[in-house]
Amino acid sequence: MSKPVCAIVGIGPGNGASFARKFDQEGYAVALLSRSTDYSSELAGELANAKAYACDASDPAAVVSAFDQVKTDLGEVDTLIYNAGSGSWKSVEEITAQEFELGWRINTLGALVSSQQVIPAMKQAGKGNIIFVGATASLRGVPMTAGFAPAKAAQRILAQSMAKHLWPQGIHVAVMIIDGGIRSPHMPQSDGPDKLEPDDIALAAHYLTTQPQSAWSFEVDVRPMLEKW
Amino acid sequence: MSKPVCAIVGIGPGNGASFARKFDQEGYAVALLSRSTDYSSELAGELANAKAYACDASDPAAVVSAFDQVKTDLGEVDTLIYNAGSGSWKSVEEITAQEFELGWRINTLGALVSSQQVIPAMKQAGKGNIIFVGATASLRGVPMTAGFAPAKAAQRILAQSMAKHLWPQGIHVAVMIIDGGIRSPHMPQSDGPDKLEPDDIALAAHYLTTQPQSAWSFEVDVRPMLEKW
Amino acid sequence: MSKPVCAIVGIGPGNGASFARKFDQEGYAVALLSRSTDYSSELAGELANAKAYACDASDPAAVVSAFDQVKTDLGEVDTLIYNAGSGSWKSVEEITAQEFELGWRINTLGALVSSQQVIPAMKQAGKGNIIFVGATASLRGVPMTAGFAPAKAAQRILAQSMAKHLWPQGIHVAVMIIDGGIRSPHMPQSDGPDKLEPDDIALAAHYLTTQPQSAWSFEVDVRPMLEKW
Amino acid sequence: MSKPVCAIVGIGPGNGASFARKFDQEGYAVALLSRSTDYSSELAGELANAKAYACDASDPAAVVSAFDQVKTDLGEVDTLIYNAGSGSWKSVEEITAQEFELGWRINTLGALVSSQQVIPAMKQAGKGNIIFVGATASLRGVPMTAGFAPAKAAQRILAQSMAKHLWPQGIHVAVMIIDGGIRSPHMPQSDGPDKLEPDDIALAAHYLTTQPQSAWSFEVDVRPMLEKW
Repeated sequence: MSKPVCAIVGIGPGNGASFARKFDQEGYAVALLSRSTDYSSELAGELANAKAYACDASDPAAVVSAFDQVKTDLGEVDTLIYNAGSGSWKSVEEITAQEFELGWRINTLGALVSSQQVIPAMKQAGKGNIIFVGATASLRGVPMTAGFAPAKAAQRILAQSMAKHLWPQGIHVAVMIIDGGIRSPHMPQSDGPDKLEPDDIALAAHYLTTQPQSAWSFEVDVRPMLEKW
Repeated sequence: MSKPVCAIVGIGPGNGASFARKFDQEGYAVALLSRSTDYSSELAGELANAKAYACDASDPAAVVSAFDQVKTDLGEVDTLIYNAGSGSWKSVEEITAQEFELGWRINTLGALVSSQQVIPAMKQAGKGNIIFVGATASLRGVPMTAGFAPAKAAQRILAQSMAKHLWPQGIHVAVMIIDGGIRSPHMPQSDGPDKLEPDDIALAAHYLTTQPQSAWSFEVDVRPMLEKW
Repeated sequence: MSKPVCAIVGIGPGNGASFARKFDQEGYAVALLSRSTDYSSELAGELANAKAYACDASDPAAVVSAFDQVKTDLGEVDTLIYNAGSGSWKSVEEITAQEFELGWRINTLGALVSSQQVIPAMKQAGKGNIIFVGATASLRGVPMTAGFAPAKAAQRILAQSMAKHLWPQGIHVAVMIIDGGIRSPHMPQSDGPDKLEPDDIALAAHYLTTQPQSAWSFEVDVRPMLEKW
Repeated sequence: MSKPVCAIVGIGPGNGASFARKFDQEGYAVALLSRSTDYSSELAGELANAKAYACDASDPAAVVSAFDQVKTDLGEVDTLIYNAGSGSWKSVEEITAQEFELGWRINTLGALVSSQQVIPAMKQAGKGNIIFVGATASLRGVPMTAGFAPAKAAQRILAQSMAKHLWPQGIHVAVMIIDGGIRSPHMPQSDGPDKLEPDDIALAAHYLTTQPQSAWSFEVDVRPMLEKW
C-alpha cells in the first residue's frame, strides 16, 4: 500500500524541517514546497520518502503547478501543513503597500490557494488534515506589526471559515497559534530554554492529525513554559 | 476660520450618505470618495460644503491621488471614515484567488493606504480621528465568508496596530463592529425594525470623534435591539 | 412629570460621584447605593434630586431591601449603573476562599441581584438601561488577579447573557470595559494625563443610554490616549 | 517506584469515568473525588490502583479534607483534573441567587480550592498538571445560561491567571473548552455521531500532560466533526 502524503509549504531548517522529519517518521511520503530548493532538496535526501518542490507560495499559479507535480509524483495529499510565513516589523507609518501586500500573499493568499489544491481529493476520500501555522499576532496587533498581524488575523479567520465548511465532510482544518520565539537549529541548546523547540511544535501538529472525529480541536496555542504572555 | 475636513471613503445611499450628512451638520467640510461619482456628486450638492472625488479604494495609486486632490481643495483631513467594503458570499471551495484578493484590496489595503494619506498632518496637528467601519465577520468566519471575514479580520487588527501606535500622538483610531443588516433607503420604514439605521450608525461614528482623550474607545459594536447574536 | 430614576450601586468620590453628577445634570432623580452613606449622603446634598441608601452590594437581602426603598421614594428605576467592585491583588497561592468569594459577591452576584430588582418594571415599560462597569481583567487573567479577573469575567458574561435575553424587550444592557488607572479626585490635574478621568467615564455611560434602538452597543472599552495596551 | 497520582474531581459515568480509565491505563494511581461514592467506588474497583473519596466540590472544607486523605493514601498529586460542573438552564429572570451561587461554587470556587491543595507539592517537585474541564459557555453567554456561563467564564480566567503564575514554576495549567453535547454511556453508539465521546475527551486531557515544556498549550477546544459552531 502506498504511503499517505503530507505536503508542507514553507521549508527551512526550523519548523519546516521538523514537520518533515516528524511526518516522515510517522510513515508519510513528504512533499517539501519552498521558494528555493537549496535547503529542501538536501533535507529530502535525509528522509525515507520525500521530494522537494520549488514553489513561491505568494504566487497562485506557482502554487497550482507545484501541487499538480506533487500529485503526479506522490499521489493525493492527505495532510497539508501551511508553514509559509513572513512579516516585516514595521508600523503603519513605515510599511509600504508593497510590503503589506507581500505579507498577505504569503501568509493568507498562499494558505487559501494551497488548501484549494488539496480539498477536492480530501472531500472524495472523506478525510484529510489542513493545518495552518499561525501566530499570536493573529489575535492582536501591536505598533510594529502593521503588516504581519493583519495577515495572520486573516489567515486564522480563513481557517475558521474553512473549518466550519469542511469539518462535516471529514476534513480536519486547524490552526496552531505559535506564541513565542522559536529556537534556531544554530542556537546552542543552553541558549533557548525560553523558546519553542521546532520538534515540539511538530509533535503538536502531528497530534492534531491523530484526534478522533468526536473531539477535534480547531485552535491550539503552544508556547514555552517560560514565555511571558 | 476654515472648517475641519472629514474624508469618507465609500459613498452610497446607505452608511456613506449618513456619515456625510452627519459630519456636514456638525460643521465639517466633507470629502466624498467613491469609485463612481454618479451618486456622490448628487449628494455633495445637498450638503453645505462637500465635494465628490472618484477613487477606486482598491488601487493605492488612485487613493494617493484622490487624497492629494482633497488636500488641495479642502485642506488637511481631520477625520477619516473608511467605509469602503465589499464581500463575496462564497465558501473556500467557490471563491477564486481574484475575488479573495479584491475583497482584501477594498476592505484592508485601501484602509491602510487611505490612513497613510492623513496620518502625517494629524501627527503634525497632534490630533485627528480615523474610524474603520468594520463588521462582526472580523471576529469570526462562517462557511460562506471565506473571502469577506479574513479581509475584515485583517482590517480590524490593522486598526489595533495603528491605534497602539497613533493614540499616544493624539490620533484616535477606532473600529466600529457593525453587527446586523443595514436598512436600505429604499426600504419602507415599517420593514426594518430589526435592521441598523444608517443615520444611527453615523451618530455612533460622530460620538467617537467627540470622546475626551482620557476615555477613548477603540472598538464599538452596534447592532439592532432585535438582532440575534 | 416625574423625573426618570437612575440608580447607581457603588458610590465613592471617583466614578460613582461622576455618574451621579452626570445623570443629575441630565435630569434624572438619582439613587446612590453604597455600603456606607458617609460620603454618599454628602454627595446627595449637592445634587438636585438625589438620595443616599445604605446597601452592601455583596448581600442579596440588603440589595433587595435597598431597591425596595428606592422604588418607594423615587419610583421605578429607568437606568441602573452597577459600579460596585473590589478586588484583591493576589495570586492563586495567596488568595483565600473567603477573599475569592467576597470579590465574586461584590462584582458578580451583586450585579445579578441588582439587575433582578429593576428588570420587571423595565419590561413593563418596554425600556430601560442596565450598565455594568467592567474592566479589562474580564478579558484576561494575570498572575496577581486570581480573584479579581474571574469575578469580572463572570460579570461580563452575565451581562452578555442578560443582553441577549433583554434587548428584544427594550432593555439596553451594556458593559463598559475600563482599561487603565482612574484619576483620583485628590490627584493634582497635572499628575494624571495617563489616567481615566471619572467625568469622562460618566460621559460614556450616559452616551450608552442615548443610543437609538437600531444601533445599540453592548461592549464599549474606554482607556486613556496614553495607555499602554 | 510508586505511581504518579492523578486526582479527578467530579466522577460520573461520562467524562469522569473516561478520565479515570485513561490515567489508570497510563500507569497512574487515581483518586476519584465526587459528592457521592456510589458510582465512584464501583469504578475504583475496576481499576488497577484507584480509590474513591466523598467530596462536595462546592464546599472548601470538604475539598481540603478530601485532598488530605488522598495524600495520606496515595501520596502527592501529580495531575489534577477538575471535572466538577453543573449548571441550571435559566435566564436572568428565572435564576435565584442561590442557584447562581451554587453554580459558581461548583464550577469556580471548587476549582480554586482543589488547585490550592496540590500546588505546594507541585512547586516543590517543579512539575505537575492542572487541567480544568471548561465549556464554550466560558466564552459567551446566551439567554438561558445566566448562571452557567458566568461560572465557566470565571473558571477559565482563573485558569489563565494560574497559568501565567505557575507555568514558570513547571506546573502546566490548561483549560479544555468542550464545545458540544457529550455522549452518554447509555446511548446506543449509532445515536451520537454528532456528540463528543468521553474517551476522546480523556485522550485530549492526557495529551496535554505529555506536552514537552517548550510547547505547552493553555487552551484547547474539542468538538465533534459534525458540531455546528
